[in-house]
Amino acid sequence: MIKKCTDILEQVRKTKPLIHHITNYVTVNDCANITLCIGASPVMADELEEASDIAGIASAVVLNTGTLNKATISSMIVAGQTANAKGIPVILDPVGVGASALRNKTVEDILKKIKISVLRGNISEIRFISGLQSNTKGVDASEDDLSNIADKNHIAMELAKKLNCVVAITGKIDVVSDGRTTVCLENGHSALGDITGTGCMCSSLIGSLCGADPSMPLEAAIAALLVMGISGEIAFAKAGEKGLGSFHTALFDAVSKIDGAMLCSQGKISSENH
Amino acid sequence: MIKKCTDILEQVRKTKPLIHHITNYVTVNDCANITLCIGASPVMADELEEASDIAGIASAVVLNTGTLNKATISSMIVAGQTANAKGIPVILDPVGVGASALRNKTVEDILKKIKISVLRGNISEIRFISGLQSNTKGVDASEDDLSNIADKNHIAMELAKKLNCVVAITGKIDVVSDGRTTVCLENGHSALGDITGTGCMCSSLIGSLCGADPSMPLEAAIAALLVMGISGEIAFAKAGEKGLGSFHTALFDAVSKIDGAMLCSQGKISSENH
Amino acid sequence: MIKKCTDILEQVRKTKPLIHHITNYVTVNDCANITLCIGASPVMADELEEASDIAGIASAVVLNTGTLNKATISSMIVAGQTANAKGIPVILDPVGVGASALRNKTVEDILKKIKISVLRGNISEIRFISGLQSNTKGVDASEDDLSNIADKNHIAMELAKKLNCVVAITGKIDVVSDGRTTVCLENGHSALGDITGTGCMCSSLIGSLCGADPSMPLEAAIAALLVMGISGEIAFAKAGEKGLGSFHTALFDAVSKIDGAMLCSQGKISSENH
Repeated sequence: MIKKCTDILEQVRKTKPLIHHITNYVTVNDCANITLCIGASPVMADELEEASDIAGIASAVVLNTGTLNKATISSMIVAGQTANAKGIPVILDPVGVGASALRNKTVEDILKKIKISVLRGNISEIRFISGLQSNTKGVDASEDDLSNIADKNHIAMELAKKLNCVVAITGKIDVVSDGRTTVCLENGHSALGDITGTGCMCSSLIGSLCGADPSMPLEAAIAALLVMGISGEIAFAKAGEKGLGSFHTALFDAVSKIDGAMLCSQGKISSENH
Repeated sequence: MIKKCTDILEQVRKTKPLIHHITNYVTVNDCANITLCIGASPVMADELEEASDIAGIASAVVLNTGTLNKATISSMIVAGQTANAKGIPVILDPVGVGASALRNKTVEDILKKIKISVLRGNISEIRFISGLQSNTKGVDASEDDLSNIADKNHIAMELAKKLNCVVAITGKIDVVSDGRTTVCLENGHSALGDITGTGCMCSSLIGSLCGADPSMPLEAAIAALLVMGISGEIAFAKAGEKGLGSFHTALFDAVSKIDGAMLCSQGKISSENH
Repeated sequence: MIKKCTDILEQVRKTKPLIHHITNYVTVNDCANITLCIGASPVMADELEEASDIAGIASAVVLNTGTLNKATISSMIVAGQTANAKGIPVILDPVGVGASALRNKTVEDILKKIKISVLRGNISEIRFISGLQSNTKGVDASEDDLSNIADKNHIAMELAKKLNCVVAITGKIDVVSDGRTTVCLENGHSALGDITGTGCMCSSLIGSLCGADPSMPLEAAIAALLVMGISGEIAFAKAGEKGLGSFHTALFDAVSKIDGAMLCSQGKISSENH
């Protein structure tokens, strides 16, 4: 498992895949920079008239519902369909699903019309998509502590089976499942929840790594979350005492410097197969 | 006064209120991060179809006209009206009013249709709204030095009475008035004017603190401006010599580390009652 | 030459010209901050209804096609035409031209309807506009190494003649030409390509310096690229080892601290006249 993760990391830096984002305007700069830090090349383009053109030359497409607007919802569908037609992996980050009817309808629509490779959300969002009781409030997870880890594993696995994709639930402990293999990742730091965009950035990293090798979405998602978790630990050790501005800067430093050996030596993975 | 300010600061970190922003795309990431630094939770959502849903679950709504577009003007009105109906405080940051007919008309419309809790602007913007001679040029204050402090106090107090809200004029010396009590704050550093978004961030801080306790908008506004002013001083002392990038980072550090004791010991407040 | 560059730099800090941007939402915050770092004042406004108002009070207009959308394309045309009518310089950054039909059509339309003072792009973009074989992929240059420097000089000079404007091609070596004088600049660091927005920021710097003195667009463009190149070197020396987050921060530090003496002592310029 970890060997495949380090291979994908090496691959992304060698091939610099183009990652098309249709994403929110809050964290878009961070998403572009984290994509560059991991070695891929970001392009953000959300106008309907060019969504298909850009998706068609990309190695992965990341759809993020953080600041939905009606004009770009159509662009997401078109970009996703072009990607599907060409076998380009699509990553969905259903930010804030559960918080408004528009988000719920949009995420439902995307899941109906587009084959997703990796779905990444916090536990509130993933519970909502699973049809479970959820209390999404805004865009931050609001019930991480309500779910024990066995529940999370079960939710991830069942949703992965239902949607036939990889499901990644990020939080204090990350859970990733493709419906057969379910993995828990225990890296990270609580400060990652104190700056905006770390969830979005995880999705960009997943997109970058899927773009480097679309044949292993489970391993790409795991590698991406290991990168973010370990980088969060490194950043906090270096700069956490100074405050959240320095932590934010140090996070980009860490992602830009991470390598396969660090994933091997510092990754905390446990997995179960079904 | 200062005791109430420190209470609100404690309250925001305890309750993590959700702050709905309809704001500009230039400084939106900084606004989200400063909201997190002070202990609240940001959500940015400007599509008309969900503006009411999101405002309705928020603890405060921040409207900012920095990059107006026609689609989101309607969303501002709807979000503000939902907030008004539910007793949720609304903060208005009339960025660049005076610089274009669209901004003038929009701010007029918002003030007519929505009850504002706190209006925050630079002296050019507040003069314009007061119907006084103003020379707003772009989005930065252009006449700070033209107004003496007695004038500023008078303008803030009169506009507060007229609009029945708290008015905060930020600048070298900040002035805050609810029409009865008028307070001058002398913290801050000129470097705050050399990075983009410090005005917008003040409005996010005001929103965060009003969200934590909607019953004291005057004190919430004062606390917010003390936080920004003192943090600016700390940031400049730590990193100003290095340049504006490091100062920007240090500003977030300082806001994330500030506490009530620092407001008490470092805040420079003078007030007059009428 | 270098004397004129340092004069413009002095001028921008003395006069603080207002620079109107209609730009992408990915790097807009960086563009605003770099504009402040060099001493100018940024305003971003892309709604059609105010585009002409804002352009009319600005000292320069920067048009950037990084995240095109149909609503703002009209705003670009209107802002550009207002600027032309008033003799305000217009800078065009044709981000990603070649990557989609929309971008191609838009850039063509802008060049047809608006007199540009300075066109700045990477070699892929400039080749595309020149009608040469190009392989723009996304928004990053993809063929820097395919072009030798004599070719680049020729392309810049010919396009400058054809469009009757200054053409700046940024890359490992920057080339700037007004059709008569062609200059090569060898400052910079490869890390500038590893963070998003350095191209956009170059265009903001060009806009800032053209705004300070519209009579010397060639020298303004050269000064701007010297500022970015030298700052990149300084930033990498200070923070490159730490990683891309620290490098990004140090870049703003360096631009905010640069002065004419540094341009003279560290600028690597070679020029040829025709």
